[in-house]
Amino acid sequence: MTHLGARLLRVDKGVCEVALPYSDKVTQQQGGFHGGAMGALADIAGGYAALTHCEEGMEVVTVEYKVNFLAAFQQGELVATGRVLKAGKRIIVTSAEVQHVAADGTRRDCAVMQQTLVPVPMTYTAA
Amino acid sequence: MTHLGARLLRVDKGVCEVALPYSDKVTQQQGGFHGGAMGALADIAGGYAALTHCEEGMEVVTVEYKVNFLAAFQQGELVATGRVLKAGKRIIVTSAEVQHVAADGTRRDCAVMQQTLVPVPMTYTAA
Amino acid sequence: MTHLGARLLRVDKGVCEVALPYSDKVTQQQGGFHGGAMGALADIAGGYAALTHCEEGMEVVTVEYKVNFLAAFQQGELVATGRVLKAGKRIIVTSAEVQHVAADGTRRDCAVMQQTLVPVPMTYTAA
Amino acid sequence: MTHLGARLLRVDKGVCEVALPYSDKVTQQQGGFHGGAMGALADIAGGYAALTHCEEGMEVVTVEYKVNFLAAFQQGELVATGRVLKAGKRIIVTSAEVQHVAADGTRRDCAVMQQTLVPVPMTYTAA
Repeated sequence: MTHLGARLLRVDKGVCEVALPYSDKVTQQQGGFHGGAMGALADIAGGYAALTHCEEGMEVVTVEYKVNFLAAFQQGELVATGRVLKAGKRIIVTSAEVQHVAADGTRRDCAVMQQTLVPVPMTYTAA
Repeated sequence: MTHLGARLLRVDKGVCEVALPYSDKVTQQQGGFHGGAMGALADIAGGYAALTHCEEGMEVVTVEYKVNFLAAFQQGELVATGRVLKAGKRIIVTSAEVQHVAADGTRRDCAVMQQTLVPVPMTYTAA
Repeated sequence: MTHLGARLLRVDKGVCEVALPYSDKVTQQQGGFHGGAMGALADIAGGYAALTHCEEGMEVVTVEYKVNFLAAFQQGELVATGRVLKAGKRIIVTSAEVQHVAADGTRRDCAVMQQTLVPVPMTYTAA
Repeated sequence: MTHLGARLLRVDKGVCEVALPYSDKVTQQQGGFHGGAMGALADIAGGYAALTHCEEGMEVVTVEYKVNFLAAFQQGELVATGRVLKAGKRIIVTSAEVQHVAADGTRRDCAVMQQTLVPVPMTYTAA
């Protein structure tokens, strides 16, 4: 998502905010933010929120997510806020709200997501 | 998605296939295809399949989708096949299967999606 | 659901609360509330909440819902609170939280749902 | 669900069929099968299918499911067919198709579901 211009705004225990600015990389045929981009952004916000509940040496893998789109927006940027609803040993459940933030700061609901993740041992090595 | 290298393989009545080649634009921290990219690909395959059931002057908007990830893959490409399950006046329901196709042609299941769309009048104009 | 003992606690504009007492009609093999019963309860709470946004002569039909289970409980009762997130002409989107209420009044999160409905003209007649 | 008249039709490795006859216990305001009952039936079919992939001493717990309703039916019965899409150590993913079977044997699509489960050690004891 860094490739698409996404940036991390905030990470606290169980909460994460990620922003995605408007660009032609994330829009659909009518010029609004693409649903797939919104889903991906929500997926990331939920995933980072889940990560804050992992023990050292563990990371998270998304099992599934479901996203409902509430409205279409152009310009400005999207802010997705992921929150941990349940942090179990086997399963982590999160939700995310995606809001559109206009140039003048107006915030409006854009999408909502529910997500399931599993904590797994890190498989890659810091060389 | 064209931006990410996606290309349309096939569009028949009620069916659509879209491919997404492996690149650093669509991968996550462990080097596999990113879940968000898989979800977006499935969303598009389902959307195009739905479009084949629309009357002239209509297009579709994604209301929601839900995607389960079955396995992680590197290299090769993803092929998402969207199919219309129900084409109603108010609601179109689709499913999509995402498979990984390795360099040697081996196909393996990667993700499954269920999606809801609504047919709406086209709002943009061909200038 | 009346058959299973469900009762309406509250209906306000955009919000609805429904309760389901513990009984052997709504439990699974380990003695906890059955997931299907929790899903059905959440479906109903969301549906009634959506109904409060319908014009006269209209009702709602559930297009789809997705429910995540957070914890299993025995005894007491479940209370599902449905809320309208978007009330459009074509689509209504709701969420519902299901909590378990123990005999001593303790409330704990049990399940969360996202739901899509369509408003449709009433088809049945009050004879 | 036995309480609602559900019965097991078939259990093979990775597949399970469950039937639910029409009755006033499983209908909604317009006289069709209730969405919550269809969801619960699909949940059960997927769960039993998942169970066939568990080792001895293990059972499954539903993490989440998502169901799309395709059409409403009265009379006859519903048959839900659950299938395992992925049987992992940490996660089992299933889908289910719900069909309506009319008195004359006509089958029509009714609902589709995607479901996530986790295998867990059996916690109850056969006294």
